[in-house]
Amino acid sequence: MGTNFILDLAKRRKTVRRFSSTQVNLKDVLVALETACQAPSGANSQPWRFVVITNSQIKGKIREICERIEREFYSKVNGELREWLLARGFSWKKPFLEEAPVLVLILSETKAPYSTESVWLAIGYILLALEELNLGTVTYTPSNAKGVLDEVDVPDGFRLEAILPIGVSTDEKSKEPRLSLDEVTYMNSWGRSVSTL
Amino acid sequence: MGTNFILDLAKRRKTVRRFSSTQVNLKDVLVALETACQAPSGANSQPWRFVVITNSQIKGKIREICERIEREFYSKVNGELREWLLARGFSWKKPFLEEAPVLVLILSETKAPYSTESVWLAIGYILLALEELNLGTVTYTPSNAKGVLDEVDVPDGFRLEAILPIGVSTDEKSKEPRLSLDEVTYMNSWGRSVSTL
Repeated sequence: MGTNFILDLAKRRKTVRRFSSTQVNLKDVLVALETACQAPSGANSQPWRFVVITNSQIKGKIREICERIEREFYSKVNGELREWLLARGFSWKKPFLEEAPVLVLILSETKAPYSTESVWLAIGYILLALEELNLGTVTYTPSNAKGVLDEVDVPDGFRLEAILPIGVSTDEKSKEPRLSLDEVTYMNSWGRSVSTL
Repeated sequence: MGTNFILDLAKRRKTVRRFSSTQVNLKDVLVALETACQAPSGANSQPWRFVVITNSQIKGKIREICERIEREFYSKVNGELREWLLARGFSWKKPFLEEAPVLVLILSETKAPYSTESVWLAIGYILLALEELNLGTVTYTPSNAKGVLDEVDVPDGFRLEAILPIGVSTDEKSKEPRLSLDEVTYMNSWGRSVSTL
């Protein structure tokens, strides 16, 4: 089977929501985005656009905008998702938007074929590239993006897919458990286990 | 900056649509899917499901179903996308669905939060894991998935995100060119170049 560097990286990686104030090397962030640029996309349209934010004032404004939206969301969310969120101590507060030394806004060109799919595939590349560089992140998506898009002058025709706060992790939460491969994989037909292979 | 194994893999990887009849080690395919299982997802819902197909008859049926849908699509497509497809010699024919030794149907649980986004992020993990194992693939999505889902008995509540034919590449097409990082990345505000860093 050879080495499985990617599998090991993927296993090691966990979502990070608390960041050290240590500066990150901007070149490292750009390496991760350069990795994304190599991803495939619908009709090779490369619908990804990135806005890298290091300016503290802009980060503060984005936090403020997102927390306003989150407060509204948390006042309405219910059912299983509400329980899941509360059990993990989540709230409308998003300090990571200000505390992470770098934010990357990830946008998609809406008219491109499979634009959302293509951009999220590229986000998968980014997460692994950041992990290799020992940088943590979380894919955060506000439920309403208009304020954020206006704050950095994004023109019409682009959607905010995610905001990635990037930095050195100080997050002590352990990785959420995962389903095992045979719980999500079937052989030749739905319901036929792979574990008998 | 250290080594950038992920960047190198991403640069090396290209989309593959022609496959050798050489069998692939099914364990390698499962390593790639195990990698996907480690991806983050909305509320950790892990909405990915995989159906691995090695049975020739089922592959033949899936090819037949998809080519019927593609013939209809090609009779209607127009504009830029039509030109892009024709210039590259694409047609309704999808022999890779039968010629690749393995197909993986990638499904998402539709009720999970951000299910499509989460599954495509995980597809990014799969592509890099396959590349590390020297296996080629293409993320193929038929415009109508019902026939394929029925063929392998997928229950309601799951969407077909992509079919990945997997095998050893015999594809001589070179990688499609990519936009450079500074064509898609801005600094602190839309339109402010990163190339001056």
